Amino acid sequence: MPASEQIFSDRVAHRAWLASQAALPRGFRTGATRFAFTPVEVGKPAHMTATVIVLDAPTPVFAGMFTRNAFPGAPILVGRRRLAEATLGAVVVNNKVSNVCAPDGEAAAEQVCVAAARLLDLRPEQVLPSSTGVIGWRLPAAELCAALPAAVAALQGDSVLPAAEGIVTTDLFPKVRRATVGGGSIVGIAKGAGMIEPNLATMLVYLLTDCDVPRDHLRRTLAAAVDISFNSMSIDSDTSTSDTVVALSSQRALCPDLGLFDSALATLCQDLCGDVVRNGEGVHHVIAVTVEGAPDRVSARALGKAVVNSPLFQCAVCGNDANVGRLLAAIGKHVGALPTPYDVSRCQVTLGGEVIFQGGVFRLDPAKEQRLVAHLRHAELYASTPPADGLTFSPPIDFPPHQRVVDIVISLGLGSGACRVLGADRSHEYISENADYRS
Amino acid sequence: MPASEQIFSDRVAHRAWLASQAALPRGFRTGATRFAFTPVEVGKPAHMTATVIVLDAPTPVFAGMFTRNAFPGAPILVGRRRLAEATLGAVVVNNKVSNVCAPDGEAAAEQVCVAAARLLDLRPEQVLPSSTGVIGWRLPAAELCAALPAAVAALQGDSVLPAAEGIVTTDLFPKVRRATVGGGSIVGIAKGAGMIEPNLATMLVYLLTDCDVPRDHLRRTLAAAVDISFNSMSIDSDTSTSDTVVALSSQRALCPDLGLFDSALATLCQDLCGDVVRNGEGVHHVIAVTVEGAPDRVSARALGKAVVNSPLFQCAVCGNDANVGRLLAAIGKHVGALPTPYDVSRCQVTLGGEVIFQGGVFRLDPAKEQRLVAHLRHAELYASTPPADGLTFSPPIDFPPHQRVVDIVISLGLGSGACRVLGADRSHEYISENADYRS
Repeated sequence: MPASEQIFSDRVAHRAWLASQAALPRGFRTGATRFAFTPVEVGKPAHMTATVIVLDAPTPVFAGMFTRNAFPGAPILVGRRRLAEATLGAVVVNNKVSNVCAPDGEAAAEQVCVAAARLLDLRPEQVLPSSTGVIGWRLPAAELCAALPAAVAALQGDSVLPAAEGIVTTDLFPKVRRATVGGGSIVGIAKGAGMIEPNLATMLVYLLTDCDVPRDHLRRTLAAAVDISFNSMSIDSDTSTSDTVVALSSQRALCPDLGLFDSALATLCQDLCGDVVRNGEGVHHVIAVTVEGAPDRVSARALGKAVVNSPLFQCAVCGNDANVGRLLAAIGKHVGALPTPYDVSRCQVTLGGEVIFQGGVFRLDPAKEQRLVAHLRHAELYASTPPADGLTFSPPIDFPPHQRVVDIVISLGLGSGACRVLGADRSHEYISENADYRS
Repeated sequence: MPASEQIFSDRVAHRAWLASQAALPRGFRTGATRFAFTPVEVGKPAHMTATVIVLDAPTPVFAGMFTRNAFPGAPILVGRRRLAEATLGAVVVNNKVSNVCAPDGEAAAEQVCVAAARLLDLRPEQVLPSSTGVIGWRLPAAELCAALPAAVAALQGDSVLPAAEGIVTTDLFPKVRRATVGGGSIVGIAKGAGMIEPNLATMLVYLLTDCDVPRDHLRRTLAAAVDISFNSMSIDSDTSTSDTVVALSSQRALCPDLGLFDSALATLCQDLCGDVVRNGEGVHHVIAVTVEGAPDRVSARALGKAVVNSPLFQCAVCGNDANVGRLLAAIGKHVGALPTPYDVSRCQVTLGGEVIFQGGVFRLDPAKEQRLVAHLRHAELYASTPPADGLTFSPPIDFPPHQRVVDIVISLGLGSGACRVLGADRSHEYISENADYRS
């Protein structure tokens, strides 16, 4: 959250702020439609939303980054091929079924592109498919193709919100961020709440801009922005099979200052990344771990991720329990598994600005304990409420009340490598959400 | 669980079975006592149990393996030094405070050894200290030393149960396993329920035998047994700062067949490892992942651990949700992060004996879905019950009703490396246990 931190008093305030972010850059339209289908694998009815993002004219300026999961979804395989195309004209996104390793999955994805291209007067190769949802089920391609005319009929050029709302699965709220760059703008939307530790990109992010930057530049600067944002976060350490970040430019606004564009894109990606973590499944606290003094940036990030992925530390944070022993254990688990021995007297750790470990020993007392607990409580997004059925927890709010974080700084005293990693705590709501996600 | 699988109808049946395992080998006595103290870091009262394991005569035949966490507890640092001693005569264990990176922690551990040695007519260097519990708090050495006479007064040579019960923290039940080897026996006890992904050994395991094997042989065979048991399991991926496995021989029984001893020790460690996972914090299902066809054993184990540590898959198993997509995603997350590309058509995955992935695609249908769910339900240890306060879950049983597992086999088709990894699901009970562990 390098940008200004928002405070939202209620859902209405959050929606108003979202609307203020949502104006589409020139040259884009979005539309969505919802429909029913029956997954053949389980034989029970389900619902899907088809979302279409369309450029007024196909553009040569587009970029895409995809998951490194060894079992990528069919849309990822198609999307990688699309990167070699001269131009791209539209993106078709569906939720509920991620189309991963299903029989004839690529043919199904291409079938959807053919149907969309026919409606939009494009070639099928100018359409990028994206899917998110249950892994293993077949994409209902015929039903999706039949729904596309309604999505296309809904296209409008005012707001990205229909797309931001159409791509979600378990998300509590849509995620929209914007930046102005000279006479142009960038608008980004993200879907993502679980299966989030991206390895190259995160689950479905679309960045739309009218800034006319060179194609090669867009691809380079997107990679740099992703590295410090989506690739430096983890909600549950589970790298998705469908992670996708796509950037599209309509080339409708001059962009005389590429540096300004790069900086705006990087900030926007970091802000959107913060939104994704705040909307992580069952997240009560966002945890920001800054690792300094590491041998290099890669090892700093690896340590930061080990800390935010420690189940025991995640649970302690969820309970506003200042269990700094678990924080140190998580650091030591990671550092101790490395080949080089580490002198623990070099390590300093702060939580909420309080030094809790220094010179090889803990620095704790009852007054500091109270300040640490206060820091955790201040960063809490919400507390669990007893569930209606006694077992199935759900978040009591569907908007982020604030953007404060649990702030941890780990100084290793080894070098100049540094990284800031975003993560989240682990709660009853995460368990409830994921103990029966498909139903 | 390579050994026979036990079924327990109730707590009484489980306790009777434990008693049948608990006879001490010749030459050992155990005793324990419980006392109150006040941790200076939080200023609120707490309780601790001091447990003593004593040999009738100091032995040169002992072995120890300790955590690789970079912030090892003071007893680990002392224990590593003890390995160079000629003989060992006793082990003193405390729970509640793990004595990790506390100011003057090693001096506190040594102070306890001095007090125990005086009571037991040993040199302090003949006493091995062990601690488990909250990380960060100071060991109440004076209070612990004052409690030792009562623990020594309670020493008896019949049963290991007082020790098995004395060393626990959040464990639901004590863990005891025995094996007979010719005219001798091995008895093992374990403490461990959370912060369990050992890297060399797991949280407090003591293996007592009267079999007279050479010291060097004991150290080698212990390392081999630990490799296929405690080092091949994970409950929550959090390698503890206090992991310890100690083996002691009283040399009271001839051991003409070292191979038989090795085999018995390995089986016992695997059984005890199964007990630790079954007693993992909030564990509803034990998950056994067999990885075959890997390039080597190390990579097979790494993949197995990635699967059992996947939060999303763990939650699905907890909910008896046959979400095999998450299983594949977890495999792909790990394999995809490796440098060598992987041809997914080589991969076969079974769950409960059902082929769910083969030839690059899922093999799913509604009838198979029902069989998969039945397999998960059959392996369930217990289901969550609504908590009294609406928020704080606790397991409805304190014994393992059976030793069945969720059985997964992953064949990579790359080589001959194989490994079997034990893990567990993730439940509301784990969250409740760990959101405020220290209170």
